[in-house]
Amino acid sequence: MSLADLEVVAFDCDDTLWLSESFFVLTQQRFTALLAPWCDADETAERLIERERENLAHFGYGVKGFTLSMIETAIDASEGSIPAAALAEVIEWAREMMAHPVQLLPGVLETLDGLENKYRLVAITKGDLFHQESKVAASGLAERFEAVHIVSEKDPATYQGIVDGLGVAPHRFLMVGNSTRSDIEPVLAIGGRAVHVPHDVTWALEHADEELDVPVLGRLDELLALL
Amino acid sequence: MSLADLEVVAFDCDDTLWLSESFFVLTQQRFTALLAPWCDADETAERLIERERENLAHFGYGVKGFTLSMIETAIDASEGSIPAAALAEVIEWAREMMAHPVQLLPGVLETLDGLENKYRLVAITKGDLFHQESKVAASGLAERFEAVHIVSEKDPATYQGIVDGLGVAPHRFLMVGNSTRSDIEPVLAIGGRAVHVPHDVTWALEHADEELDVPVLGRLDELLALL
Repeated sequence: MSLADLEVVAFDCDDTLWLSESFFVLTQQRFTALLAPWCDADETAERLIERERENLAHFGYGVKGFTLSMIETAIDASEGSIPAAALAEVIEWAREMMAHPVQLLPGVLETLDGLENKYRLVAITKGDLFHQESKVAASGLAERFEAVHIVSEKDPATYQGIVDGLGVAPHRFLMVGNSTRSDIEPVLAIGGRAVHVPHDVTWALEHADEELDVPVLGRLDELLALL
Repeated sequence: MSLADLEVVAFDCDDTLWLSESFFVLTQQRFTALLAPWCDADETAERLIERERENLAHFGYGVKGFTLSMIETAIDASEGSIPAAALAEVIEWAREMMAHPVQLLPGVLETLDGLENKYRLVAITKGDLFHQESKVAASGLAERFEAVHIVSEKDPATYQGIVDGLGVAPHRFLMVGNSTRSDIEPVLAIGGRAVHVPHDVTWALEHADEELDVPVLGRLDELLALL
């Protein structure tokens, strides 16, 4: 990877800079237990992901949409027999998810320290504006970045807009993230560069359809050797 | 109002450029009917606004947070006896609210036409990123503005950030909107200017605590005579 003319290094946030999906997984475990009288774990998982997929177009990404999907799944799977009070519990989980402390992933600070004098650094995260802003603030990382872009979708047009706004040619822009579908594929599509740092748990809807030919790192700070 | 050195005219969106609150009011009427077996209309309204007020800090503004507040209110008010299927209906209303067509308010196009060659025009709207982006796109107005800022809260710091980003002195920045709490008060607080265009229906949490000394217009296009 020739990176001699690289100018901007952009970081995904959820599960690249800090933990996110694991909170969804924990909540989903509670949800599976709640639905156990009606569904086994596999059926609950299938029903929920199908509902999430349908609801993305209506509600977008984030905890609130996920919560509405859980509630609808619970009502459907129980054929309306789940007590309403159990659904209040689901909303209580949502409140906890919105408030969970931000836990940085290993090597994040060292990576930002090592790159800050060599490149322009930006963060690009998708999802709920209110929740992402809270997490950016709680992370203590906001000042590390020239800009933090919170976007509703990470598609080629989104990246093109960001690259244009930064005034940089796409081949001088590198995106680092854990989601092949959101952080890698659309960046390659506009002629940008990308590095994949997979996370142990990644949401089923974040996988690209095809294998992508980009560097894959085990931890974020391996970026320091690469750049 | 001396406006000789005005440079930027900023517009609130919901209930300034297009209808919004009336969709919440219609949904709340359905919700009141749904809860009629347990509460009268006044009690439902009181319970719901109290829940919304509490949930703002957890979930932020917008349809999804409103929906979670309706579900919690229904469970509380019915002491858990509301059938879960009735709550699925509430989520169906949310899907309708997210998808409602954007209806511009009277005089909006004429106002933008009349001001576009005299001032820099921007839009500033708060709430759910996904929903606000959808509405901006559906409005057909995006190209009319130098920038559209979707923010999670309209406080003095938010406006200061926008004014700084525009590179304009606060006294050369005028905000036009229907909410005294979100569009007028915080703008005056940073030394900006403001014009109030009240809407017939305004959410209870959008009223300022005090009367504010700014021009009040009956319709947006009265701005043309003022500027």
